[in-house]
Amino acid sequence: MKFLKALQPKIIKEQMNQIYKDIIIDSELLSLEEALGRIISSDVYSSVNIPDFNKSTVDGYALKSKDTNGASDNMPAFIDNIGEVLMGKEAVEVIEENQCVYVPTGGMVPLGADAVVMIEYIDKLDEITIAVNSTLHSGENIIYIGEDIRINDLVVTKGKELTPYDIGALSAIGVSKVSVYKKPQVVIFSTGDEIRKPEDTINIGEVRDINSYVIEGLVKKYGGEVLHKSIFNDDIDKLKNGVEKWIEKCDLLVISGGSSAGIKDVTVEVLDNFGEPGVFVHGVAVKPGKPTILSYARKTAMFGLPGHPGSSSIIFNIFGKELFNIILHKSEKIESFIEAELMYSLVGSPGKETYVMGKLVSEGEKYRFYPLIKKSSAISQISQSNGYVKIDGNTEGIEKGRKVKVFID
Amino acid sequence: MKFLKALQPKIIKEQMNQIYKDIIIDSELLSLEEALGRIISSDVYSSVNIPDFNKSTVDGYALKSKDTNGASDNMPAFIDNIGEVLMGKEAVEVIEENQCVYVPTGGMVPLGADAVVMIEYIDKLDEITIAVNSTLHSGENIIYIGEDIRINDLVVTKGKELTPYDIGALSAIGVSKVSVYKKPQVVIFSTGDEIRKPEDTINIGEVRDINSYVIEGLVKKYGGEVLHKSIFNDDIDKLKNGVEKWIEKCDLLVISGGSSAGIKDVTVEVLDNFGEPGVFVHGVAVKPGKPTILSYARKTAMFGLPGHPGSSSIIFNIFGKELFNIILHKSEKIESFIEAELMYSLVGSPGKETYVMGKLVSEGEKYRFYPLIKKSSAISQISQSNGYVKIDGNTEGIEKGRKVKVFID
Repeated sequence: MKFLKALQPKIIKEQMNQIYKDIIIDSELLSLEEALGRIISSDVYSSVNIPDFNKSTVDGYALKSKDTNGASDNMPAFIDNIGEVLMGKEAVEVIEENQCVYVPTGGMVPLGADAVVMIEYIDKLDEITIAVNSTLHSGENIIYIGEDIRINDLVVTKGKELTPYDIGALSAIGVSKVSVYKKPQVVIFSTGDEIRKPEDTINIGEVRDINSYVIEGLVKKYGGEVLHKSIFNDDIDKLKNGVEKWIEKCDLLVISGGSSAGIKDVTVEVLDNFGEPGVFVHGVAVKPGKPTILSYARKTAMFGLPGHPGSSSIIFNIFGKELFNIILHKSEKIESFIEAELMYSLVGSPGKETYVMGKLVSEGEKYRFYPLIKKSSAISQISQSNGYVKIDGNTEGIEKGRKVKVFID
Repeated sequence: MKFLKALQPKIIKEQMNQIYKDIIIDSELLSLEEALGRIISSDVYSSVNIPDFNKSTVDGYALKSKDTNGASDNMPAFIDNIGEVLMGKEAVEVIEENQCVYVPTGGMVPLGADAVVMIEYIDKLDEITIAVNSTLHSGENIIYIGEDIRINDLVVTKGKELTPYDIGALSAIGVSKVSVYKKPQVVIFSTGDEIRKPEDTINIGEVRDINSYVIEGLVKKYGGEVLHKSIFNDDIDKLKNGVEKWIEKCDLLVISGGSSAGIKDVTVEVLDNFGEPGVFVHGVAVKPGKPTILSYARKTAMFGLPGHPGSSSIIFNIFGKELFNIILHKSEKIESFIEAELMYSLVGSPGKETYVMGKLVSEGEKYRFYPLIKKSSAISQISQSNGYVKIDGNTEGIEKGRKVKVFID
């Protein structure tokens, strides 16, 4: 059995990128409605121009801009209205000198015209003649062919999480189905002789499962799907059989609990039992969460997470999210944070990244962050938190009143 | 027909809260797995103590702390180990003076003990005796009954969006099913003689639907579900019949396009046709997005949105999100933003809130915001954006280089 020393998160993430890049997630073709929020698995280029005709941005009259040279309220230009363009129809007239046609917003600007005067800036003199009260420049109130999106423009980049706006852009260019990564499949084992399901009645000494529910929620948030979860006694053979049964069916297998140095610690032995490279991280320089195990075998990532809900969720926030970034080839990794006033001083831990969860409260335009400091086994702590701060290993801590970044992802 | 003046967003939100509070969204009972991300529809109090036994936070020996008074490396206290507590089992021994039992992390601390010494701080002298090398205080390494969550504690508040941590907490207190609001049902009509579906081939002058896809995505993000969407010509009678058919089946009906002052503007007439109070907002002091319509009749909210994708999505970001906050009674409304350096100067619009979308780019620990300024009909603008800044109506603009809040929700 390998016993490794606690590594810095930065080093661990480099190793994860190296090792977990071999995990292949297949793609599937989905409708635009289904693809929202999923990670697109190939670049999409436009096969059309948007717009694909010169389009008016206003309700008005399409004309030659030079016919309005010098026009003003006192000295209007008089132009003949020779027709109307209907929405959704091709403009048939060709505009000659001192002619115009009515074009609605979004309508096609006819050939010969190079500007559209808004109806607010004209007067109708009779059935035919309009008076234009301002000078237009060429191109005014027109979006030209391809001005928004040009043929062969890259519209959505591989690895992007599809937003409502991406879906709109794909629709605009006539793409109605899109290739996205399948949801990575995750199996979660909670270990411990004392663990029961939430619907079970419990005896003294037993507790209900927390971690597998928290991990499942985070998996879904990061874009994965829980294929199976179950509770195991601290029995090494049963656990090995469980991993053997599921390892080939999933992309990530999580064993929650059993990773501390207690007498029932069997996780590291189990996770190192399924081939090379096996366990490559055993201990991380993160507080809380030191007894974390990362392993890889048979194209499956395996995590051993600490049993305390606070530690387990912080670790999965860091390394679980990173795993999904890697295997889904996510291109954008903006971490949402809010700058807030720290309401209590926090103490760091030399050489370790310390994470402190707490409650972010808005006070008018400002935010305050109240750290919730309890024993790390407290579930009330994490359920009342809506963000966390990170204290670097090379600082002694952060003083009350200082501005801190509160991460809210 | 009522023509109203452009109102400030703050005033409009007050009116929305007053009017839309009458929309009733029913509840449904879901499993914890299904309830993730949904809005809980009643307060949940704990019927149990967590923990419901005094629990050790370490692997060690439970004993009376007073027996270790003055103990140190040089002067250990000698204690008799009389047994072991098994994980998940009730502790049967009662600790007397100078006695201890082994307890694993998470195990039950037996009666008579008031502290647990970590195995790291003892030496085993023989089969029975341990030497304790430090002085323990009462309560050390113990979480007491109810210390995390007490019977009758409020665990999750009505209106909260259930996070992975809430789901964990509900599991911990033995709640396996939870009452959440049903997803509000939304119907979206895109209007315009020129609008086609993404899979349609299009003729010159026609364009593919963008807005209903963007709105659908935002609806899902805010917790709703799109029951139906369809495309209408600018035909007032067909549109009235469409609304009549769907108004009683949905909680929000959106008409996209047709809300500007053009000759085909029929939306306001349609949305004012279904009873009191009907249209109560026609025109908002927001740029872009002025020609926005809000209406209410027959327990259904109705929105008329501008046809330009940029305007329509900004307006739905403001008022659509607010509607879901109201009808789902959401209790937490933290808006995620990132502080970034503004890369181009922006000009405001007196008396109006101006919204500018753009691209947030991380540069090491800092963020830069590049506004994307195009004509508001540009889909490339919104699909390339990942955030927006807001310019108040009482400022002239924001200078390049200033720090701005970039909203990323």
